[in-house]
Amino acid sequence: MASTPHEHHTSPPNLSFAIILLPGYQWLDVAGPIDYLNNHSQAKLRAINSDPALVAKAPILTWYYVASTLDPISASSGPKQTPTHTFATCPHVDYVFMPGNEIPYAVPPEFTEFVQTRFADPKVRFLTVCTGSLLLAPTGILNHLRVASNKRGLKFLAQSGQLDHKVHWVGDRRWVKDGKVWSAAGITSGIDLAAEFARVYFDKDVVEDAKEIAEEVPKPDTPDPYAWILKGIDLGYGDHHPHKK
Amino acid sequence: MASTPHEHHTSPPNLSFAIILLPGYQWLDVAGPIDYLNNHSQAKLRAINSDPALVAKAPILTWYYVASTLDPISASSGPKQTPTHTFATCPHVDYVFMPGNEIPYAVPPEFTEFVQTRFADPKVRFLTVCTGSLLLAPTGILNHLRVASNKRGLKFLAQSGQLDHKVHWVGDRRWVKDGKVWSAAGITSGIDLAAEFARVYFDKDVVEDAKEIAEEVPKPDTPDPYAWILKGIDLGYGDHHPHKK
Repeated sequence: MASTPHEHHTSPPNLSFAIILLPGYQWLDVAGPIDYLNNHSQAKLRAINSDPALVAKAPILTWYYVASTLDPISASSGPKQTPTHTFATCPHVDYVFMPGNEIPYAVPPEFTEFVQTRFADPKVRFLTVCTGSLLLAPTGILNHLRVASNKRGLKFLAQSGQLDHKVHWVGDRRWVKDGKVWSAAGITSGIDLAAEFARVYFDKDVVEDAKEIAEEVPKPDTPDPYAWILKGIDLGYGDHHPHKK
Repeated sequence: MASTPHEHHTSPPNLSFAIILLPGYQWLDVAGPIDYLNNHSQAKLRAINSDPALVAKAPILTWYYVASTLDPISASSGPKQTPTHTFATCPHVDYVFMPGNEIPYAVPPEFTEFVQTRFADPKVRFLTVCTGSLLLAPTGILNHLRVASNKRGLKFLAQSGQLDHKVHWVGDRRWVKDGKVWSAAGITSGIDLAAEFARVYFDKDVVEDAKEIAEEVPKPDTPDPYAWILKGIDLGYGDHHPHKK
């Protein structure tokens, strides 16, 4: 499915996100895209005394941080962090955001239920960074979609015969959009995913402003400077491999 | 002062960092460089089952998160975070890490005392990202050093006559090292600063491994794609401006 630039272009967009915090999650997978997107928000632009005309065009963004309990959790690095909601109490959101973790990783049953329930709602979309997609795959929501992931993670699972072939893994893109799922490759490509999300959905003056604040030059999906990691590795696509039809 | 690549090359390096968490700090200023550096650490490489020979060459990295009190604080975005130490209880560290915040920002007196006391120790060095350097400048520790900062922040202070001219502000580099201070420009350039720090101090195989895990291509200090922000802006250097001598 091609991306549809105007689907969220209410004026301005008002979007809420549930960010899943599994213990040990890769800190930069979350802080990169979320803080980058947050720099586009009305709240942030107002806080730094931006031109009111720019603020008015900026999106209203709401972040929920969701875990099994409200106990503080540790990420890969960083101080302990306190979730705002549990899987059971998280309000309706427009997007679910899934960061990576070490693999293999034993997810709790409430994670699987949350992901499957939210995905079943046709209005809810997903963003995932790094090995987040490898943790989502067993829930079945990625079946038959083109999805990026951390390339070292994909290589390890492919070589050890553990790769889920119902997912159409993409090994040569920093980010991919297919259907309701935006996915990024390894860690820092999550910032590029966020920049592309902003380019598609937010006002272009706001997007340029956010780039200047962060002094960021977002990378395109391709050429992917780390595609070489998966050269010669068979990602397979089972019966869904386009070259097998 | 030129950088001295071997000054920390014990085998392996064992480095501790005090990361200053002022309320409202820019989340990505910290999570970017710290989580990027943490991917080089023995603890991380061991957690992802890396080759023991690689782990043995990796640095031992310790992070302390320091604030005025141990109360959870909010960053620019992200969940609430709990400091591990106060300015009064933070142990000896090798590096103090200073992220940015909105400017102007009223720092607490214990911040100024902590910064000045640690800087007075000849063995303690500093890393700063984005407007962190603008918050450090009033403490005097940056006087006469070449220092980078967020370019929009530099422009605002220069135009409003508030820029500290005892600091030699550098407006056309993503990162700068001078004396005991490593400084980065706007937000995402902090990851480039971390990558340069790693290149200088850590084993090269470990550095290449961390790049692959993060799928990161670090940017050089120059050319700086956002140098244009400061074109025509007089950063002044007071009596220390090299072109005034």
